[in-house]
Amino acid sequence: MRTILVIGIGTGDPEHLTLQAITALRRADVVYVPDKGAEKAALRQVREAILARHAAPGTRLVPVAIPRRAEAGSDYRGVVADWHGAIADRYAAAFADTLPDGGTGALLVWGDPALYDSTLRILETLSGRGLALDWQVFPGLSAVQLLCARHRIPLNRIGKAVTITPARQLGPRLPDDTDTVVVVLDGDETFLTLEGDDLEIFWGAYLGTPHEILRAGPLHAIRDDIAATRRTARAAHGWIMDTYLIRRRGDE
Amino acid sequence: MRTILVIGIGTGDPEHLTLQAITALRRADVVYVPDKGAEKAALRQVREAILARHAAPGTRLVPVAIPRRAEAGSDYRGVVADWHGAIADRYAAAFADTLPDGGTGALLVWGDPALYDSTLRILETLSGRGLALDWQVFPGLSAVQLLCARHRIPLNRIGKAVTITPARQLGPRLPDDTDTVVVVLDGDETFLTLEGDDLEIFWGAYLGTPHEILRAGPLHAIRDDIAATRRTARAAHGWIMDTYLIRRRGDE
Repeated sequence: MRTILVIGIGTGDPEHLTLQAITALRRADVVYVPDKGAEKAALRQVREAILARHAAPGTRLVPVAIPRRAEAGSDYRGVVADWHGAIADRYAAAFADTLPDGGTGALLVWGDPALYDSTLRILETLSGRGLALDWQVFPGLSAVQLLCARHRIPLNRIGKAVTITPARQLGPRLPDDTDTVVVVLDGDETFLTLEGDDLEIFWGAYLGTPHEILRAGPLHAIRDDIAATRRTARAAHGWIMDTYLIRRRGDE
Repeated sequence: MRTILVIGIGTGDPEHLTLQAITALRRADVVYVPDKGAEKAALRQVREAILARHAAPGTRLVPVAIPRRAEAGSDYRGVVADWHGAIADRYAAAFADTLPDGGTGALLVWGDPALYDSTLRILETLSGRGLALDWQVFPGLSAVQLLCARHRIPLNRIGKAVTITPARQLGPRLPDDTDTVVVVLDGDETFLTLEGDDLEIFWGAYLGTPHEILRAGPLHAIRDDIAATRRTARAAHGWIMDTYLIRRRGDE
């Protein structure tokens, strides 16, 4: 049996780590470091700073090359499933090569491992293949939480529901019964085409990093500025991670 | 101008605190400690342990008596608004009496200040009354995150949306377009009447505390056990905090 610690590390500020995440990191004999090639230097530096500051001396770092995902066309889930299988192959090989029976490895996950991240599914896949694995999960601050904290807004209206959705699931307008939607994974700037004069947007990019950018206001009034801002920033940094909350205006 | 630090402290494990939350706590001259009367000894002890361990020596603790909320009938939002106004009165008095101009106070919030918590609205209310206040928000781990971590499940299905909802907003069945719902504030055991043979539930109570209880399985098969378990636990401890995730079964 091998033990894997899945550790949420927040969105880019080493101060996001919880005490239990730090304790978990120090328990690990080996830390597996996903190498996405395209991963940006800024993020890699944050992770290296976390390891330098918190990992036990002598902790072994093992890079794991993560294959690129194929372009998702109509078969989004099929493409993602294939991709997860390919990633699982890499981790299976890395564990077999570097983690002895009884050993403890750690996987560092940006944000929270529960939210739009594949790590837990990959461990399920490996376990389903018969690999003797146990794992524990340590939550981390997600971009959704950072977004609300920086804008100093509650996620929910009083007594109301909130929906968190990938942009590809968002229709041309908010459902009638929905007050608040948080949109993630919106590379296509879906906010530019969302209908509704009564909507306000709270947008954030690079949350928790020195490059953080925030915008808030009536959607129709500021969405062109947000689009221009995100394109300029993406060109300057070579990458962007952003998320936003949309809600109907109106007092509580 | 006075500065207020709104600090999320997680759900009951002092190890939930982030490094930035600890740093913020140490900046505070005064920590305001809500006294709800009914607050349970176990939770009070956790908060006292956090303060003993992390607050700067000499930090002043100021209790703030929180009035009870009236029973919410048909006018839920009206009752909540009145209650927030009454709480704001208490904080206004506490700040005036104990926080000098230029001083920094801290409010410790269970879970994450963004999620079903009134602290941010109360500060907005005070600011709207003309009190010269600035405030910063430090996210904390929410019960929703702990629930997923303990059950080792993702919050979302691959590429799908998630809704977080108070029980009173939940209908007799999941909306057709919803795969996953997280239910909070369900004192009435709404899960007992939810329709649908294809639903599974992941339930947790006292998450992150030594009394933590977890249950997972097909909703129709285990909901009676969950109801019995939560009644027994509530009787034993004198209080209960629980939450659960409901999703349609089906592989990914």
